[in-house]
Amino acid sequence: MVTESWEIRAAGKRQSILDQIPKEWKLSTADINKAKAQRDITGPFIEQFLDNEEIKITSYDAVELVNQIQQGKLTAVQVTTAFSKRAAIAHQIGNCLLEFFFDKALERAKELDAYFAQNQRTIGPLHGLPISLKDQFHVKGVDTSMAYVGWIGRNHGFPESQTHQVESLLTTDLLSLGAVLYCKTSLPQTLFFGETVNNITGITPNPQNQLLSCGGSSGGEGALIALGGSVLGVGTDIGGSVRVPAAFNGIYSIKPSVDRVSYKDVATTNPGQTIWPSTAGFMGSSLSGVTLALQSTLSTKPWLRDPAVVPIPFREDVYQSYKSLNRPLKFGIVWSDGIANPHPPISRGLKRIVTALREAGHGVVDWNPPSHSEAMNIHLNILLADASADVREQLALSGEPLVPGVMAAEEGVQPMGLLEYQALTLEGKAYENAYAEYWNANTGEDGEVVDAVIMPVAPSAAVRPGKFYHIAYTEVLNMLNYSTVVVPVHGIKADKEVDVVDQGYQPSSETDRLNWGAYDPEIFYGAPVGVQIVGRKFEEEKVLGIAEVVDEVLKAHTK
Amino acid sequence: MVTESWEIRAAGKRQSILDQIPKEWKLSTADINKAKAQRDITGPFIEQFLDNEEIKITSYDAVELVNQIQQGKLTAVQVTTAFSKRAAIAHQIGNCLLEFFFDKALERAKELDAYFAQNQRTIGPLHGLPISLKDQFHVKGVDTSMAYVGWIGRNHGFPESQTHQVESLLTTDLLSLGAVLYCKTSLPQTLFFGETVNNITGITPNPQNQLLSCGGSSGGEGALIALGGSVLGVGTDIGGSVRVPAAFNGIYSIKPSVDRVSYKDVATTNPGQTIWPSTAGFMGSSLSGVTLALQSTLSTKPWLRDPAVVPIPFREDVYQSYKSLNRPLKFGIVWSDGIANPHPPISRGLKRIVTALREAGHGVVDWNPPSHSEAMNIHLNILLADASADVREQLALSGEPLVPGVMAAEEGVQPMGLLEYQALTLEGKAYENAYAEYWNANTGEDGEVVDAVIMPVAPSAAVRPGKFYHIAYTEVLNMLNYSTVVVPVHGIKADKEVDVVDQGYQPSSETDRLNWGAYDPEIFYGAPVGVQIVGRKFEEEKVLGIAEVVDEVLKAHTK
Repeated sequence: MVTESWEIRAAGKRQSILDQIPKEWKLSTADINKAKAQRDITGPFIEQFLDNEEIKITSYDAVELVNQIQQGKLTAVQVTTAFSKRAAIAHQIGNCLLEFFFDKALERAKELDAYFAQNQRTIGPLHGLPISLKDQFHVKGVDTSMAYVGWIGRNHGFPESQTHQVESLLTTDLLSLGAVLYCKTSLPQTLFFGETVNNITGITPNPQNQLLSCGGSSGGEGALIALGGSVLGVGTDIGGSVRVPAAFNGIYSIKPSVDRVSYKDVATTNPGQTIWPSTAGFMGSSLSGVTLALQSTLSTKPWLRDPAVVPIPFREDVYQSYKSLNRPLKFGIVWSDGIANPHPPISRGLKRIVTALREAGHGVVDWNPPSHSEAMNIHLNILLADASADVREQLALSGEPLVPGVMAAEEGVQPMGLLEYQALTLEGKAYENAYAEYWNANTGEDGEVVDAVIMPVAPSAAVRPGKFYHIAYTEVLNMLNYSTVVVPVHGIKADKEVDVVDQGYQPSSETDRLNWGAYDPEIFYGAPVGVQIVGRKFEEEKVLGIAEVVDEVLKAHTK
Repeated sequence: MVTESWEIRAAGKRQSILDQIPKEWKLSTADINKAKAQRDITGPFIEQFLDNEEIKITSYDAVELVNQIQQGKLTAVQVTTAFSKRAAIAHQIGNCLLEFFFDKALERAKELDAYFAQNQRTIGPLHGLPISLKDQFHVKGVDTSMAYVGWIGRNHGFPESQTHQVESLLTTDLLSLGAVLYCKTSLPQTLFFGETVNNITGITPNPQNQLLSCGGSSGGEGALIALGGSVLGVGTDIGGSVRVPAAFNGIYSIKPSVDRVSYKDVATTNPGQTIWPSTAGFMGSSLSGVTLALQSTLSTKPWLRDPAVVPIPFREDVYQSYKSLNRPLKFGIVWSDGIANPHPPISRGLKRIVTALREAGHGVVDWNPPSHSEAMNIHLNILLADASADVREQLALSGEPLVPGVMAAEEGVQPMGLLEYQALTLEGKAYENAYAEYWNANTGEDGEVVDAVIMPVAPSAAVRPGKFYHIAYTEVLNMLNYSTVVVPVHGIKADKEVDVVDQGYQPSSETDRLNWGAYDPEIFYGAPVGVQIVGRKFEEEKVLGIAEVVDEVLKAHTK
């Protein structure tokens, strides 16, 4: 029987993560304090702790890495060691991990190198590529606490007898494709929060601007990738969780439609809520890396082992036809959802995109879809319909408190009645239908429907701790189950000289007032800007192809 | 305000259906009485009321009909008139319709013929084909009572202001493809019953053996097709509803996975239950007709108008690759689910299939999947989780009583608690996973997984009224959301000389005792035998292709 307080158990876990870091990768207290005083700890700051070879290896993206390994120019051990070291340093200065297991990773990398040496070929398309996982994915031999103190030393959701024996199907598949697993990233308690904070590791700040949050709930992934400690990570998304941290950290991500990627044996909050469940998604330093993740995991035919997965192989023809499109594309653009207007850096980013797209010959029409506020209310009510019974059960295991700000039903509230739950589900379906009708009808003058919609990920470039007021931009797309890719707006970061406050601004709602009040050019200075590129259900390949076009257009426009 | 008793309103509706039948198609009371005294009213019996031309036209299947019309050999008016007449007679002797609208159909057929005459081409692949719809699908200008007295003169589920303005998306799509709509078929009150009986039209008997039921809940469709009044119909299936009547009536059907075919704006029971919802399916006199229905409706890209539909076009390559397979197939065979052993005619049918398949070079392994009884319990509990609140609301509109035998929660029972509902959902998902594991593991000696599984549709060839005891053979496949095609076992009908009762039979369960006790060779004599061919989720094209192979093998074996 566990008799320690939750604080002692949490402290023990914190220490045990650090204990896994080899001595020679440990930073001095002075260096850690230096990092704390630094606004931006990415790039040059973190790279001072790496040698040139390590910097070089960790500067490659996922596709470059697997190519170099396939060509015999790098070994899995070299790559694994470089990324593990960079992740270890990232964690010491950026507090982004919940698990670190370099020993297992190195063993695995050695096996892969031996295989390559013997067979002169790789075991799969991810051979030797280090992939980070959000701490919802089970890896054999490793905890999955999901940041609950009560699950330390266990696998969240599994009986004690299966501790460390458990593996999520996506984990199994990544391993079969040749991936190297080496760490699991931090997340907010319960997953229902736009900032990454929990009772074990505390807060994960935004490494590009430590005054801000890295986002949630796959925020640890976002921070680790921004710090160069990973080029490809697996997250989950129920309301914006792989998109918000991608935008806040200036990286790429894809939120596929539910059941495109396997979620089998993945720890989550209230898994019995299957109306609008969480979906597994990928985050990466490059769009091609994110695409590689989807391509390769679908090549394993996961639907044969996870009956929830829809049997649609990666449609290379669709992806290529959009990526190398020789006709102009047509976009919808959401300037604001009318509830919370985007801060100046975001609006400037949207304008940049529209200008760049139009200059490249693409069409853009304004996009004012059915009310986000209606969708948000329905969605949130379904997410909290169990009155947070699952969350409270997990908290009770250790006695840890709910982290302030985390979205949860108040204590004592009863679960929603079934008839109300079913009626609310139908309201959500009606919203989906209304949105589809809008998509079909809002064609503009040429009568053609848009290929994709571009919209903010959040009404701010990142958020100040405790000041995340509006999740609807992403959440609505979970309710619609649309395919969504986040790309950074190259060349745009919050700039205190340009993105000044309009003193005469009149907020349009209470949410808008709160959000607008949270903007401070001095504090946001340097925060990256990302946007969502949105396709309909199961249009992942199309959206990835279109994202490549947008990414190229933005890069060219920056030059 | 409606003040008539429900009995008077029901009688009025019954009469209004008959009133739609042209005078010259009305049967005499003597003929109707003759039909009542007849065991089998299909084939020669019904054809005595048709002329040779009408018999010839209604003997073609769907593909032959659209081909003849495309070639200008038949007009839409000829075809529509012949089928409308046959359906009108079928209804008078077989009681299988809830709506009949020959006037609209004829008008439509004339327009199609005019289009064809002017353009020398059809408007779509279903040009001129009469298609019958179960009375859950809305057609403009026509009631959808769904057999509730309270919805007579209305469209079930829609406000009074929209009466007769409503059209289900599938209806719209069928019309856009050229179909002619002329009637809607009967169904059991609530849809939750394996026999077709309601307070408006009463019982629809099995036209091949009027001592037995035509099945439910798309039983009216099954009876109409068996009587030759339709070659292609649209039904729905939540627990076996397009499969049970297909088997009981010796015809073909497909139950696709949920969200393959549009269910938008379709009347149903408790639509807010989205865990294991009802799915739209097709029933027909031929397998090619059923395939044509899926092919053509998917060609309209319904996912653009109904966001619930998964964007998988009809995969012609997959269909053809199985249909014209030049390698042996491998099947699993379910002899019994261990709860209710099939009656002698069914077992004989299964043996015939296995013999025929093996003689044709195909492989067959025994199939003993995870417990049907566990799945059945979970599924039924979810279906009744609302404590039949929706059903009672519809009954209350008119004061009509629940039809005896129909599955419903007892009055006064409270809806299930949400946490229990969510937990039960997870039990169902665990069953799906266990079944997928069984599928992957039960490979037999050659180590290859089966291509499809063959199993009974029910433990009896049809059922005697009030004696339907076991729905699990079909229901389990709804919970698994598998693609399933029903084919008749050619050459096998219940035969009192062959399918005798084993006097020493020891029932294995109470359900088995009841089911076995219901078997009487004299009563079942002449009932057809059908089986299910089962593929995994979204494998409709594969299962249709395999069904063609099985159908050919069975036809050849009969010769």
